[in-house]
Amino acid sequence: MMNLPYDIYTVLDLIGTFVFALSGAVAAREKGLDIFGIFSIAFIVACGGGIIRDLCIGAMPPAGLTNWLYLVMVVAATLIGIGFYRWVNIFNQPVLLFDALGLSVFAVSGARKAIVFGHNYEVAILLGTVTAVGGGVIRDILLARIPVILKKEIYASAAMVGAMLVIAGDYLRYSKEIVSAIAIIVCFGLRFLGLHFHWNLPSFRDNETKKEE
Amino acid sequence: MMNLPYDIYTVLDLIGTFVFALSGAVAAREKGLDIFGIFSIAFIVACGGGIIRDLCIGAMPPAGLTNWLYLVMVVAATLIGIGFYRWVNIFNQPVLLFDALGLSVFAVSGARKAIVFGHNYEVAILLGTVTAVGGGVIRDILLARIPVILKKEIYASAAMVGAMLVIAGDYLRYSKEIVSAIAIIVCFGLRFLGLHFHWNLPSFRDNETKKEE
Amino acid sequence: MMNLPYDIYTVLDLIGTFVFALSGAVAAREKGLDIFGIFSIAFIVACGGGIIRDLCIGAMPPAGLTNWLYLVMVVAATLIGIGFYRWVNIFNQPVLLFDALGLSVFAVSGARKAIVFGHNYEVAILLGTVTAVGGGVIRDILLARIPVILKKEIYASAAMVGAMLVIAGDYLRYSKEIVSAIAIIVCFGLRFLGLHFHWNLPSFRDNETKKEE
Repeated sequence: MMNLPYDIYTVLDLIGTFVFALSGAVAAREKGLDIFGIFSIAFIVACGGGIIRDLCIGAMPPAGLTNWLYLVMVVAATLIGIGFYRWVNIFNQPVLLFDALGLSVFAVSGARKAIVFGHNYEVAILLGTVTAVGGGVIRDILLARIPVILKKEIYASAAMVGAMLVIAGDYLRYSKEIVSAIAIIVCFGLRFLGLHFHWNLPSFRDNETKKEE
Repeated sequence: MMNLPYDIYTVLDLIGTFVFALSGAVAAREKGLDIFGIFSIAFIVACGGGIIRDLCIGAMPPAGLTNWLYLVMVVAATLIGIGFYRWVNIFNQPVLLFDALGLSVFAVSGARKAIVFGHNYEVAILLGTVTAVGGGVIRDILLARIPVILKKEIYASAAMVGAMLVIAGDYLRYSKEIVSAIAIIVCFGLRFLGLHFHWNLPSFRDNETKKEE
Repeated sequence: MMNLPYDIYTVLDLIGTFVFALSGAVAAREKGLDIFGIFSIAFIVACGGGIIRDLCIGAMPPAGLTNWLYLVMVVAATLIGIGFYRWVNIFNQPVLLFDALGLSVFAVSGARKAIVFGHNYEVAILLGTVTAVGGGVIRDILLARIPVILKKEIYASAAMVGAMLVIAGDYLRYSKEIVSAIAIIVCFGLRFLGLHFHWNLPSFRDNETKKEE
């Protein structure tokens, strides 16, 4: 059990767990997996990023394994992904939507938890980004989809901006709640607008590129 | 070296290491890898699940790296997978068979080791399942095969049933040896019968499923 | 920050980080990723192997996350991979070349760090190999390339030879610097000559091989 059940990073972590689990459940369902396969993918996707973070900051066993609230989130998301699939699917691309939400929330909760455990700002920014990106990358590798990180629209950069805002707010001693809300909105907004308007950072596939292999 | 070399979970872990290594060696050989590539895949598959478990419960360095018995198991399995391939192959689908054995044994040993290290029942059930499923998933990702967890027949659910039986036996203070044997038989039986009779849990690929991407 | 910034394993680790990051950046650029995607892949490839090693030896948080010098190496490699791509590309197969350099350096630094942290020789050899192989395998999985470990030319075996030379030198109490240099040259030489002359360890794809799945 946790000592700080109402700490803001736990609340954010649970929200991120739910939406990433929902993205995993919907993607797994679309691949035709059975009910337990859907649960497994949902769990791995939702808790994978946080488990990497907790291992790196030395918080063993990881919260995703020891705190039953995370399991409740995954089970709820699995059941909603199955039972209310038609409802979930009124969104145009539900996997991308929930993935963007999870990205934003985990970027903030990952950065904040690293600070709470006494690590420096570099660790906080990097682990915030890794936590946010990890779940979606694992989901796409397991389901043999094109990893979201490879798609051109703004993705990992949005997560890093969110984690940096958390660090800036901590450095300036602003209110944790307000900074977290702003960071989530900015990160989600960057990702959502990036998807909607196909914003791209510069890439370099040009004539001089030599095809290898 | 280990303090409890004859503890039942170590014995089970070594058996699981051997059969998962054999499944990895046979699969790698079928992909045409060289002898050291076969050993590498066998080692990663056999020890990957246990290393994840040991990192999560704080047992550093992981037993698979520090205890030479695990290495002996992997080398033996590699040599058998190469030298006795024809013999191994009298089984219809040797990779699936050894994978099912490793699944059962690691589900039990993973759950038991988590209890021995003083973690709660939720950690034990989840890490038992992760330990059991991890090796096969890593093998299939590395070899670009269809992950077993995506195949419809009962897989991760069998591992979770095995881990739950271990927990129930611990709660009821039954004999560890008998409970472990029963849990392995039940898990292997579920997986084997599921494969043989193509038992499936319910899945949801239906007309309302929208193709994404 | 680190206590031993000039320790030989840190210097080697930084060199390995730079060349693996360069291999990741060039491979990501060839896949058409944007600038931040290139940085993400470069970072994960360069620091992934070392993070696995640090988690396994209990060095939390991993050096790749907490020491800003690693981040500088990754940023520099990303910029060089983008800005000097034409120059980098005068090498015939730049990804394979930098991968071979990273393989050699990480095999040595991984083995040495495990010894420094007081682990036995088996842990040092295995973690040296895992550190060396990890980055390239992660890069190829993320970019959906054929994993280098699956290619026939000598790869993981070269890393293990390098790690074993470090162990032998430590056992015989030879100079760390000289042993490290020899181990890197031997490992790189084995890999380079293996690529150039298509040296292969024996493999076993023969008529008796049954195709499964």
